[in-house]
Amino acid sequence: MNRAKGQMINAYTPGNGRLSPQDEALAKRRALLLGPAYRLFYETPVHIVRGEGVWLFDAAGRRYLDTYNNVAAVGHCHPRVVEAMARQAGLLATHTRYLHEAILDYSERLLGYFPTGLSQVMFTCTGSEANDLACRIARTATGGTGIIVTDNAYHGVTLATAQMSMSIGPAVAPGPEVFAIPAPTAANYPDGIAAGFATEVAAACAQMRAAGLRPALLIVDTIFSSDGVLPDPAGFLAPAAAAIRAEGGLFLADEVQPGFGRTGQGMWGFLRHGVLPDMVSLGKPMGNGYPVAGLVLRPELAAEFGAAARYFNTFGGNAVAAATADAVLSVIEDEGLMENARQTGALFANRLRELARRHDALGDIRAAGLFLGADIVENGRPAPARAAALVNRLREEGILISATGRDGHILKIRPPLPFGPDHVALFCDTLDKILAEQGGAAPVRTSS
Amino acid sequence: MNRAKGQMINAYTPGNGRLSPQDEALAKRRALLLGPAYRLFYETPVHIVRGEGVWLFDAAGRRYLDTYNNVAAVGHCHPRVVEAMARQAGLLATHTRYLHEAILDYSERLLGYFPTGLSQVMFTCTGSEANDLACRIARTATGGTGIIVTDNAYHGVTLATAQMSMSIGPAVAPGPEVFAIPAPTAANYPDGIAAGFATEVAAACAQMRAAGLRPALLIVDTIFSSDGVLPDPAGFLAPAAAAIRAEGGLFLADEVQPGFGRTGQGMWGFLRHGVLPDMVSLGKPMGNGYPVAGLVLRPELAAEFGAAARYFNTFGGNAVAAATADAVLSVIEDEGLMENARQTGALFANRLRELARRHDALGDIRAAGLFLGADIVENGRPAPARAAALVNRLREEGILISATGRDGHILKIRPPLPFGPDHVALFCDTLDKILAEQGGAAPVRTSS
Repeated sequence: MNRAKGQMINAYTPGNGRLSPQDEALAKRRALLLGPAYRLFYETPVHIVRGEGVWLFDAAGRRYLDTYNNVAAVGHCHPRVVEAMARQAGLLATHTRYLHEAILDYSERLLGYFPTGLSQVMFTCTGSEANDLACRIARTATGGTGIIVTDNAYHGVTLATAQMSMSIGPAVAPGPEVFAIPAPTAANYPDGIAAGFATEVAAACAQMRAAGLRPALLIVDTIFSSDGVLPDPAGFLAPAAAAIRAEGGLFLADEVQPGFGRTGQGMWGFLRHGVLPDMVSLGKPMGNGYPVAGLVLRPELAAEFGAAARYFNTFGGNAVAAATADAVLSVIEDEGLMENARQTGALFANRLRELARRHDALGDIRAAGLFLGADIVENGRPAPARAAALVNRLREEGILISATGRDGHILKIRPPLPFGPDHVALFCDTLDKILAEQGGAAPVRTSS
Repeated sequence: MNRAKGQMINAYTPGNGRLSPQDEALAKRRALLLGPAYRLFYETPVHIVRGEGVWLFDAAGRRYLDTYNNVAAVGHCHPRVVEAMARQAGLLATHTRYLHEAILDYSERLLGYFPTGLSQVMFTCTGSEANDLACRIARTATGGTGIIVTDNAYHGVTLATAQMSMSIGPAVAPGPEVFAIPAPTAANYPDGIAAGFATEVAAACAQMRAAGLRPALLIVDTIFSSDGVLPDPAGFLAPAAAAIRAEGGLFLADEVQPGFGRTGQGMWGFLRHGVLPDMVSLGKPMGNGYPVAGLVLRPELAAEFGAAARYFNTFGGNAVAAATADAVLSVIEDEGLMENARQTGALFANRLRELARRHDALGDIRAAGLFLGADIVENGRPAPARAAALVNRLREEGILISATGRDGHILKIRPPLPFGPDHVALFCDTLDKILAEQGGAAPVRTSS
């Protein structure tokens, strides 16, 4: 049951699973209508009909603790966000070629969370579009085309961004201008991640030049989600950013996954690394499910690009997107969600490390706020089959999660941010029970 | 005042115009926050705060007849659409890796408007993403990379689609795999558009092969909006589609502009041409402003692509997108908007042709339903400066419109579909008055 390279982690195999006749019929309709590029999660897919806070509910009324969905970052169907969206949609939903306050008020507020220097924003509908736009801008600004990514990166689904998303697997050939370097793990860089990662960036630039290309961009998800959740040691990104700049390229922090307070130590993952990116891409949690995304950048870069070419994204930055995204910021602030991510995340990591001491299957635990990665191992080695079994057992027990990493053996934990200590206890107690079933050690209950 | 190639039509030049102090301040904030790639419409931009039906309202409470915005196709802020969106957003807004009915119900309904053979749909958030995905699929299906477009085409803003959007101008170099052919006008093809256009497709394929490339895709906006609105003679696309297929390539109908009933003669522009595309891209009006788009295709193409690669678009096809798009279809049906587009569009074209007989500045009028193009000429030749003056005078008179075409001299008329005879009269009377001011002939009023 080892995962073939590029095969999707935690995907449903049609014909397998124990689906109800109704769900089986839905799965068949899906295959007919949407085709085989669409995949479902889990051995037995879930049929979700309602969401509220950190909970999702299936068609039979059963509730699931959501420890996976970072899009509904302020909680599923948050009433303040829904209300802001509906109110603006009833008033005006048009494009950015008329003057309108909403996009400007939101832009000012958003940019207030960024360090000096990152003072302009361009709006898209998806993180893919934001990263794709960054490629266009980097080409204009640097005159180069070469792009450096990590070797299990994910940056989007457009033609350009899919070609730099190694995690999609060999079905999508990397672009000829894309150079992948090993992910920043201790195993890959035994002599130190910071120096080693920067050396790889410089080496990739040398390779580019040997191939007749010039460096344009180093792009990394600052939490390295698809590479396995790699937050530490904080600060390791700074030398890599310096290395790409020394070669005339730009540094793009992809904050689609860690952004908007999830790491608990600031609104953006790059802040943990004490580095100032040239561009920052935003997406998933920005509108709590409404399709809004964007690219924050140094105005010099926008000037060069904008002087030559206009940019227009029909739905990007429309008044409803701005109002919805603004409500998301209000909820993050008013409900103290970043601080909750820090505190609950620390508790969560501690509980997982405590479990890891008692269960051999649980290896290294990595965390920054409410973004956690837990290695599932067997004799100390990656155990993707065991991870898959765990993910599916947790689903049976009413907890939604998935796995990640090059080997697919890492639990990826990134719940909605209103996740609290009770939810941590429920997750850890359930995991403890399942690991005990699988491995023999007795679970220790910490909550009733 | 002739337009430099690639310069945006109807763009505001900062410092020009007669803006109120408040609007001047907004324009300056925009420049600071969004940068120079963002452009505003009109010599004096409008500051819109509310929309209803075919009307937009500015901050001072003045109303404008909207003859430009095809996104709000069923009318600005249609209450049924807003309500459907808000209801689903309060219930569940998650992605496509759980089973859910909404996406399937919508897909079935949408595909019911397509001819047999086009029986699968993949969801994106923007028309750009849909065309970009089509490129990826065409590459997989054909093994080729060559793409044929018209010489003032617009197909999107991703790296791949911007490179095939000649209308953006020389600031974005066409991709090396992109081959542009003359737009299907009588002037370009004096011996017949259908045969001439197909011959150019074959010639572009020969050029590709000479350059060592294989044909992948012919992509056309079936109303040729940015090429100047070129609907006739209906049927001329069929030989071109046959030509690309004979060369092993695919035919993509870009319905982002004409789709969803606007032409009045069917839900899709390609239906007027009696041709069956391999893929059809959808966008702008699909969600009446909610960011939803998609690609309808032959299942054989999805099979080849999906067998190798998965496709996941975080927001694409979420339950809110499906519910909103479904409400749009309901309004189109229940309010008879396609039939209205046919009837009101015919009336509109007749009135414009009547005006053209009296005003030398008004040249050829082309129309399919509520998608109309009106050439503005001087001594029978394209007159972009006169078109720009008209667009700005109409804005002063409370009518919003823009211009299009390679020379920027064509009024592009594509109002929300609830446009009625009174709106046609208001538009035509105002145009009559302005043309009389400019050219000397007395206006003839048809409504009081």
